[in-house]
Amino acid sequence: MSRWEPNAADRLRRAALELYAEQGFDNTTVAEIAERAGLSERTFFRHFADNREVLFAGASELQQFLVESVASAPRDLAPIMVVARAFESASIYFEGRREGAQLRQAVINANPELKERELIKLSVMASALANALRARGVREPAATLASEAGVVVFRIAFENWVEPINTRDLAHVIRHAFAQLEEVASAK
Amino acid sequence: MSRWEPNAADRLRRAALELYAEQGFDNTTVAEIAERAGLSERTFFRHFADNREVLFAGASELQQFLVESVASAPRDLAPIMVVARAFESASIYFEGRREGAQLRQAVINANPELKERELIKLSVMASALANALRARGVREPAATLASEAGVVVFRIAFENWVEPINTRDLAHVIRHAFAQLEEVASAK
Repeated sequence: MSRWEPNAADRLRRAALELYAEQGFDNTTVAEIAERAGLSERTFFRHFADNREVLFAGASELQQFLVESVASAPRDLAPIMVVARAFESASIYFEGRREGAQLRQAVINANPELKERELIKLSVMASALANALRARGVREPAATLASEAGVVVFRIAFENWVEPINTRDLAHVIRHAFAQLEEVASAK
Repeated sequence: MSRWEPNAADRLRRAALELYAEQGFDNTTVAEIAERAGLSERTFFRHFADNREVLFAGASELQQFLVESVASAPRDLAPIMVVARAFESASIYFEGRREGAQLRQAVINANPELKERELIKLSVMASALANALRARGVREPAATLASEAGVVVFRIAFENWVEPINTRDLAHVIRHAFAQLEEVASAK
């Protein structure tokens, strides 16, 4: 019965974000998402475990990309630079997805439970980055400091980037935010 | 019927921590905590909303102390120094409480739900610190960077301090961790 659905995951994600923004996350069913996307509920569940997973599946993909990027960074690069470069190169992933990111951010900010989930996802991401740094031989507390601070910087940069007023590309906003961290951390 | 119970909150906190460590957080009732402390359940509920609140009431007190410390810091101090000094002076609060802090840490680390709660508490603390910095005229993203990075540093310092192997006092460990943040953030 199964058939090939081009870009099914992206269509479902898009439909879900629209519906969450229009009528609220808690008021939206998987049936509605599937209908809006022109796909079946069965197709939905082939791609996502539930209606929350639609919002957070991307974060897991991003984490995997970041961890691989940290693992393959030049040997002599300082830990914070390794993390900064990983986030900078991950920005390709968000190209052409700014509108979707805006919708997602608005949906999450409107729902305390989703905000908590986002917080936990980011914390897991920081732990994964710290692990990847330790695997490169980075000691503690440098590994945890670089990864936790890096995730904070990314979060701030990302929130700036999705602001309607912003006109810079994400890589630029991330680079600038890491420079600001250096400035803030070294101020006397 | 109510009578004065000297150090009731501290006795209940201590009893709760011991029981959580011995038999697990989820297996401990308020009745058991009250009994161990030699107090009534009624007294327990005069001090704490539930058995989770026993673990997190201290974090709210700490947050209030930090916010007041940020508000009253010298005008010309850099944001990260304002935050660092707030945490350093808060370390007085933990003097003589290292064993309790060790128990608490072990209980929280053993329970994913409590770990999530701790994460959320720390995030609320960072937001409160950022608010307090903005009230002093600190702009974004410096306010958020300094407070979020400060909370990360404090968390790392605190976890080091409770380690049985540590022999330094908390203020020293915090000062050292902020110096390490500067080193990590400015590495090229």
